[in-house]
Amino acid sequence: MTDQPTQTERIIISVDAMGGDSGPSVVVAGIAKSADKNPKIGFILHGPEQVLRKLVAKRRVLDGRVVFRDCPDVVTMEDKPSQVVRSGKNTSMWSALEAVRQGEAHGAVSCGNTGALMAMSMLRLRKLPGVNRPAIAILWPSRNPHGFNVMLDVGADVRADAKDLLQYALMGASYARNGMALGRPRIGLLNVGTEEHKGRAELKEAHSMIADFSDQANFEFVGFVEGSDIPGNKADVIVTDGFTGNVAIKTGEGTANLIGDLLREAFKYSPLSRLASILAITSLNRLKKRIDPRRVNGGVFLGLNGTVVKSHGGADATGVSAAVKLAFTLAESGFAEKLAARVASTAALAQDAAHSASQSE
Amino acid sequence: MTDQPTQTERIIISVDAMGGDSGPSVVVAGIAKSADKNPKIGFILHGPEQVLRKLVAKRRVLDGRVVFRDCPDVVTMEDKPSQVVRSGKNTSMWSALEAVRQGEAHGAVSCGNTGALMAMSMLRLRKLPGVNRPAIAILWPSRNPHGFNVMLDVGADVRADAKDLLQYALMGASYARNGMALGRPRIGLLNVGTEEHKGRAELKEAHSMIADFSDQANFEFVGFVEGSDIPGNKADVIVTDGFTGNVAIKTGEGTANLIGDLLREAFKYSPLSRLASILAITSLNRLKKRIDPRRVNGGVFLGLNGTVVKSHGGADATGVSAAVKLAFTLAESGFAEKLAARVASTAALAQDAAHSASQSE
Repeated sequence: MTDQPTQTERIIISVDAMGGDSGPSVVVAGIAKSADKNPKIGFILHGPEQVLRKLVAKRRVLDGRVVFRDCPDVVTMEDKPSQVVRSGKNTSMWSALEAVRQGEAHGAVSCGNTGALMAMSMLRLRKLPGVNRPAIAILWPSRNPHGFNVMLDVGADVRADAKDLLQYALMGASYARNGMALGRPRIGLLNVGTEEHKGRAELKEAHSMIADFSDQANFEFVGFVEGSDIPGNKADVIVTDGFTGNVAIKTGEGTANLIGDLLREAFKYSPLSRLASILAITSLNRLKKRIDPRRVNGGVFLGLNGTVVKSHGGADATGVSAAVKLAFTLAESGFAEKLAARVASTAALAQDAAHSASQSE
Repeated sequence: MTDQPTQTERIIISVDAMGGDSGPSVVVAGIAKSADKNPKIGFILHGPEQVLRKLVAKRRVLDGRVVFRDCPDVVTMEDKPSQVVRSGKNTSMWSALEAVRQGEAHGAVSCGNTGALMAMSMLRLRKLPGVNRPAIAILWPSRNPHGFNVMLDVGADVRADAKDLLQYALMGASYARNGMALGRPRIGLLNVGTEEHKGRAELKEAHSMIADFSDQANFEFVGFVEGSDIPGNKADVIVTDGFTGNVAIKTGEGTANLIGDLLREAFKYSPLSRLASILAITSLNRLKKRIDPRRVNGGVFLGLNGTVVKSHGGADATGVSAAVKLAFTLAESGFAEKLAARVASTAALAQDAAHSASQSE
């Protein structure tokens, strides 16, 4: 018999069982997948306890690995963030964040309303000292050797000034080091062209600020990159404001979905093409896996006192499990503490740099 | 023998033969393709006359259909727009626009430097009365019955305020009517969510201004749309600022290219998948044609006194021919005149609306 870690030795992930499109059964199926693969993981599960206990009881692998927190209320996709932060104390989302805040869990995962989750996270976990705007970072299929780029912000805030963009670069570099094991990540700043004279004023300012920090923050700054570099191999981390980042990922996802649907149509067209699709099924499945968003499901909230992973609202068990794995990897690497230290040490320097830049103008 | 129109009865397109990545031979091959398909088209060709005469002489179909304008200089992709507008008088790009300005041609096509072409077009053709910022509109593969959406602005200007976005909506609706024969196009305003409370302040303002104009400008306003709707079937015209639009199309293109490359790799993987790719080749080619950007090559500059089509710098003969066809279609429909009339009639009303909106705040 192998020695199983006890619940106190495990890394505990706080999981909001409610608020996703498919309900708590998919979330429980997802954590069961994670538990099966990873003996070092344990859970605090938030939602209506009676319902959750029944679902968990069906999964042997979850025996003794789940603590329940009974919450009567649910944040829906339609709820406004501003209302939820006032009246959401009895929701599973609030409770899931509270477990991180109290130090009972090493990270939180939710499939719920993104805006509400960010607003609640900012209220309960608070921003790291030195961070003005937290960001949401996602992974995007790319031509990189590791197959994915980090992009941030993809929608925490619709605005970002030059200092925010510098913070995103620092946080993104830290995430790439801890979440993707890249020693010296390449950082690119998203613009409409790669020439230094192009783009908005705040981008030119951010360009010079990020360049100044590349040595001490141990990243390589590749300068301006374009939309085509998001799925490319020029940078590992793409820095942009939350409006542009959100539109870019949704355009990319939409285009990929359209191509996928047209490809399926094309293979259904004639008996010959149907035969071809049968012969090619292994290759096509390999391709599908390579760019499957479920494999990298999870936007990470950066810049808070604690790790929060936002899983896709429509995630299935595989997707939930991927989000849980991401939260686990970051918790295991001590990411939250490293990021806090990194931001604290550079925040003062960034202010100095901004100060001297404004004086020299 | 069929009656061929004479050069004076033809619709004349002014073509900049230089500045593309592949040189003038591809441009001449492209106009030859157009001439072959369309007896009603004639050309004024701008560039080094000796070189161009030799290339044109090889194409029988161009006999008597090309007038040459000798220009010693070329605008390169590296030239800065601000320099080109000062010192570019002897370039083929300048000359191509001049032919439109003088009324000798019904529209211009260039494969050259986008920024330089826009700066020169604004200087020589001038903005339409009532237009603050011209825009570049492109077609994007979508789930629409007609297969493509219009998106603007995709890079004429990195900024756009609420009034500019309203102008884009009016110009995009006019373009969809004349270039795509849509009687009452559906207009969507790009945002990070579809709820009315979301997004930047100028978007909320633009939302109410565009809604106010939908009846008199004869379009249907579908409200806010997201990046996923750019390749979707919710709107025919997607309105956004040039920064966001540029990043979105480049992200979409890059993602499509990545999927295409991975698909090719997948089909090369095993003998079975290679066989499958041979069996599926007709279906795959049909798919490729459906989303081939060359078929809809050409960004149209809207808001100027005259029609200018920017062909992709890397366009091949098929791409150049598609851009020429677009310029021809718009010229034949009297688009430039209709757009000018539309903008003039609504500009005054828009100012009134903005005025009363600011008073009511």
